[in-house]
Amino acid sequence: MPVPPVQNLDRGKWSPFRSRGKPIRNPSNGEIIAEVAAEPPDFPNMFEFARRHGGPALRSMSIRERARMIKDLATELNCKKDRLYSLNHFTGATRKDGWYDIDGGIGTVFSFASKGAREMQDGCFHLDGDTERLSKRGTFVGRHIAVPRRGVAVHINAFNFPVWGMLEKLAPALLAGMPAIVKSASSTSYLAAECIRLIKDAGILPEGAVQFIAGNADGIANCLGPQDVLSLTGSSETAALFRAQSCVTAGGTKFIAEQDSLNASILGCHSELGTPEFELFIQEALREITTKAGQKCTASRRLIIPRRLLDDALETLSDRLSEIVVGNPELEKVEMGPLVSMEQKRNVLDKVNQLELEASMVCGSIDDLETCGADPEIGAFFAPTILLCAAPDEARRIHEIEAFGPVSCIMPYRDAEHAAALANRGGGSLVASVFTNDPVEAKSIAVATAAWHGRLYFNNRESMKEATGHGSPLAPMIHGGPGRAGGGEELGGVRGVMQYMQRTAVQASPNLLAAISGQWVKGAARNFSTVHPFKRGFNELKVGDALTTDSRVVTERDIRHFAEFTGDKFYAHTDEAAAMRNPFFPGKVAHGYLLLSFAAGLFVDPEEGPVLANTGLSKLAFRKPVSPGESIRAELTVKRKTRRTDEYGEVRWHVSIENQDCELVAEYELRTFVAYRA
Amino acid sequence: MPVPPVQNLDRGKWSPFRSRGKPIRNPSNGEIIAEVAAEPPDFPNMFEFARRHGGPALRSMSIRERARMIKDLATELNCKKDRLYSLNHFTGATRKDGWYDIDGGIGTVFSFASKGAREMQDGCFHLDGDTERLSKRGTFVGRHIAVPRRGVAVHINAFNFPVWGMLEKLAPALLAGMPAIVKSASSTSYLAAECIRLIKDAGILPEGAVQFIAGNADGIANCLGPQDVLSLTGSSETAALFRAQSCVTAGGTKFIAEQDSLNASILGCHSELGTPEFELFIQEALREITTKAGQKCTASRRLIIPRRLLDDALETLSDRLSEIVVGNPELEKVEMGPLVSMEQKRNVLDKVNQLELEASMVCGSIDDLETCGADPEIGAFFAPTILLCAAPDEARRIHEIEAFGPVSCIMPYRDAEHAAALANRGGGSLVASVFTNDPVEAKSIAVATAAWHGRLYFNNRESMKEATGHGSPLAPMIHGGPGRAGGGEELGGVRGVMQYMQRTAVQASPNLLAAISGQWVKGAARNFSTVHPFKRGFNELKVGDALTTDSRVVTERDIRHFAEFTGDKFYAHTDEAAAMRNPFFPGKVAHGYLLLSFAAGLFVDPEEGPVLANTGLSKLAFRKPVSPGESIRAELTVKRKTRRTDEYGEVRWHVSIENQDCELVAEYELRTFVAYRA
Repeated sequence: MPVPPVQNLDRGKWSPFRSRGKPIRNPSNGEIIAEVAAEPPDFPNMFEFARRHGGPALRSMSIRERARMIKDLATELNCKKDRLYSLNHFTGATRKDGWYDIDGGIGTVFSFASKGAREMQDGCFHLDGDTERLSKRGTFVGRHIAVPRRGVAVHINAFNFPVWGMLEKLAPALLAGMPAIVKSASSTSYLAAECIRLIKDAGILPEGAVQFIAGNADGIANCLGPQDVLSLTGSSETAALFRAQSCVTAGGTKFIAEQDSLNASILGCHSELGTPEFELFIQEALREITTKAGQKCTASRRLIIPRRLLDDALETLSDRLSEIVVGNPELEKVEMGPLVSMEQKRNVLDKVNQLELEASMVCGSIDDLETCGADPEIGAFFAPTILLCAAPDEARRIHEIEAFGPVSCIMPYRDAEHAAALANRGGGSLVASVFTNDPVEAKSIAVATAAWHGRLYFNNRESMKEATGHGSPLAPMIHGGPGRAGGGEELGGVRGVMQYMQRTAVQASPNLLAAISGQWVKGAARNFSTVHPFKRGFNELKVGDALTTDSRVVTERDIRHFAEFTGDKFYAHTDEAAAMRNPFFPGKVAHGYLLLSFAAGLFVDPEEGPVLANTGLSKLAFRKPVSPGESIRAELTVKRKTRRTDEYGEVRWHVSIENQDCELVAEYELRTFVAYRA
Repeated sequence: MPVPPVQNLDRGKWSPFRSRGKPIRNPSNGEIIAEVAAEPPDFPNMFEFARRHGGPALRSMSIRERARMIKDLATELNCKKDRLYSLNHFTGATRKDGWYDIDGGIGTVFSFASKGAREMQDGCFHLDGDTERLSKRGTFVGRHIAVPRRGVAVHINAFNFPVWGMLEKLAPALLAGMPAIVKSASSTSYLAAECIRLIKDAGILPEGAVQFIAGNADGIANCLGPQDVLSLTGSSETAALFRAQSCVTAGGTKFIAEQDSLNASILGCHSELGTPEFELFIQEALREITTKAGQKCTASRRLIIPRRLLDDALETLSDRLSEIVVGNPELEKVEMGPLVSMEQKRNVLDKVNQLELEASMVCGSIDDLETCGADPEIGAFFAPTILLCAAPDEARRIHEIEAFGPVSCIMPYRDAEHAAALANRGGGSLVASVFTNDPVEAKSIAVATAAWHGRLYFNNRESMKEATGHGSPLAPMIHGGPGRAGGGEELGGVRGVMQYMQRTAVQASPNLLAAISGQWVKGAARNFSTVHPFKRGFNELKVGDALTTDSRVVTERDIRHFAEFTGDKFYAHTDEAAAMRNPFFPGKVAHGYLLLSFAAGLFVDPEEGPVLANTGLSKLAFRKPVSPGESIRAELTVKRKTRRTDEYGEVRWHVSIENQDCELVAEYELRTFVAYRA
């Protein structure tokens, strides 16, 4: 065998088979390439290990530390990815297919690392949303925190993307702070196992953070409890079986599914043969049929085309498809490899036969396939296939039956409404794509289809050079879809991490909430000291450290001068009579920017010190105008601290400006970079 | 009968019984007060009606219009709430219990109306999160939109809060744009039906937006499909039955459950008899036992007390409980009414008997209950009951069995870690409360318990005057919990509305994304015209309308002058040598506020016009410093428009400041109020 037996990674050790293994064959030539365990591992002990070691170790790290950890992991995998590519072709994947799987998977980990560092709160809690004022006087407030679920994330992965499919689930789970048990699909498990080997050998993850099963996984659901997450990518039938398990129906286990779905691509009705959108549609259709030999949960199964362009589209597609080189994916010129197994080939054939009851085959001879560097009789090869369904409204199977191979069905439509209705007939999908250059059409199709598709992918001449493809889920955008697609959500940046966290509402006094959340909250105590806070380094500054400035009168002359100096002669600052006609002002008032500038003048410490720069501000609200002769003073409080680089961190200050009557004039959040040491 | 038969509201009409009704009894005296239908209604036609009429009508409204609609509804209910109070006592509820149910329910609708108007995007899409840049050059970008699910929201409500329980589900569903079919618990359905009658008679909702069932609902799950939502409040057993229905396991119906749970209250370990926290803990425990006679899914079932305070707490609780007046809830002096039915009484008794295997009864004689204005033999009265479990670690039942009545179990703990472990033994709860004045203890208990509880309620001397109660879910905070509590999320402001929406990732060119989302996106086209955009009224302004200003040189003198004028003499603006030592600056640079002020000077139109006020700004980021002698110019683009009052709306402008080399110096989002007409 070219690949050693695929052992399970059980409690930190590769576990030898207890009985004879189950063989896995190379789909290109039928040779046995590896084998997996025929018996299930000791699940109770694996779960116990994850709960006892992996969970506590991950939870003892801050979110920022976990983000750093998975960034290091991605860097390591990226260095050693050749070892993954060396096994890639055994799965039937071409080098290009492998790019989506291997580089795509590693890129996803990098993306989560970056989201975790930039968009999540550091510390043991992530904070979700803003503070809610729950009482009139503000002595009782609320906020949502998110904490790692205290269980195990079980990932049941599909065969088609052994690396990406594993890493896109692992990264958010680890970032959230949950240990994982990965069940890889047996048929491509040797590639997933090699990735796990790289992860284990890197020594970056704590013990028990990841365990791995390649073979028989009977009984895995029996170990699942109320804090666990079961995330599955696969068929709707498999998902339904897991959803009916008592751990899900009664035991409180969270279940997430991404199911293969009848995704659609729509060519906009204003396209013509020769327009960029027509060409993009054809290219995308070809890519969806041939990439991974069509074995993708996001593949476009239904091509929805304006009736008048049907012949043009069919002809172009057929011509191009006939040039696709099918064969041994090790060969550079081969553009499409075999299906993952002979069993899969039989399955696809059976589905195509069913579809042929409603559609006619336009492209793709089942019996007479030319293959390059492989024997079509022995390998699991399948010709790129296009079916045509001329009456898609009457049809049922083409909207329900998925041939999980290089098979798409073309159907004509009358108008945008009809196109949307056909796309929605899939009963819920992961993605629908629309090729149009018309913003009005784009909007109307979005309105008509959004409820039925987890992702809407638009492409046109403007985006074509950078668009990432109908079939490619991206880490910042959610991946999942309603109905038939399983109702799950993965990826989507922080949203994907939240799947592994418990969101909990916290209600408390401002002081307690500040202590819990690690952020100063309006109403919480502040520490005033004789040392100006700008003189303290990041490490010295504490949340709640504060400064009250002297006050300064804002004179009519200041306002006039500011107007002259800046050129901002808006009538409310310069014309008493006009200002009085304005519903918000009592008469002439100071410029908002004058107030901000004076406030800075009041609170800034001029000397060289740890504060390096003011990088911005947010949530500025002007609450009450300031009339000439009134005075202002500012209060500055450390709201939140976040480490950024090895030299400095970000300090966010709550700033309030009050007038002589202690009325709030303006408030905002000021951002500064502050060196760690003063 | 004091109440007419409780008919179903089926396709807009009250539907007479087809056979003899099923009686409902007054729990205080056993008299029949109303009856409900014994046969299920025509569900297929009810669903069809909701899908054909209610859904399209609601979806044709904007989010803002729906927010307005539910605000009007709340106003109407508030005017006529006496009609609800007149039926309240039949359910066994005191007037005060009714306040939580009736005023609490109406307040929740108001709260959602306000969140919808203030925190959601107007139009047919809500936008979730910011634009994601998906490509280097920015020609392909992404954003998440949320649209109403195109199905029916089925609400299966518990008996205990017939009004609040209905409205807290209805408000977010209607705001999201989904029609609802409400199944009220039969035993208190006459009160829910009266509320539905008020809603129907108000004529505010479109036809088919709400239908109602009081009696037999067999077969309701058979009508559910992939765009529908089934939201249940009830026992874990009922929830498990629904979760196993094929509509949920295989049909794509979204299921949300709030289940009764074994909620806990912890008295912090630094309390003493006589401290405010001790007193608050006792008061809350009493309130949780007696409100609605303990029939609340959030009621505190487990009172976790420092061992050394056990006797003090028991004694205080027993004394106070013995003074509680139980009886006919119509009487003003009665503090606790009966359980909802004799069946419920038998159920609670049975559960108490089971709990007594692990705990001893300290308070609450089953056989010898004094009742006021009622016969304890005939009514479903139950004495306020306290059990003591001295060895809670060894016990199992007290953490698993819920007596859904006025019953709590006291257990002692050693230290904070032990207290948290006991609270978590409930296997997932809706709420845990902690009474402490110690921020360190608060944080450590939050860290140790958050994963097991949907809400953590802290109360102490600081918050006691305004704290809203352990048992009261609030509209802005999520209500739901992991594991035993059902894993659902309701309320939580916009989060609760999202339960009824599909979140869909949209990827497109900036122009298409702007057209779809109704907001200008960086990279999308802008319309420059000779008319200054500040001269155009809200209605005239279009998203994408833009202005490029002249440029202005920022001189060394400007910077020196600004420093003198404002007092902001930060060294980076005033001391060349010091500025050069700063890692971010090439030497002396202009103040950020100087740039903002000059930019305003460049873009502001000084004349009286439709722009009424600059109300604030957000997301200000300084990207590149400006050195003396460099010049800046500003670009101003209408990013987003939101109607606010009858006179004016809010316009958000994207502002970018560039230097002479077209490099971005700063960007921000400026908010203004603009009158509808110029």
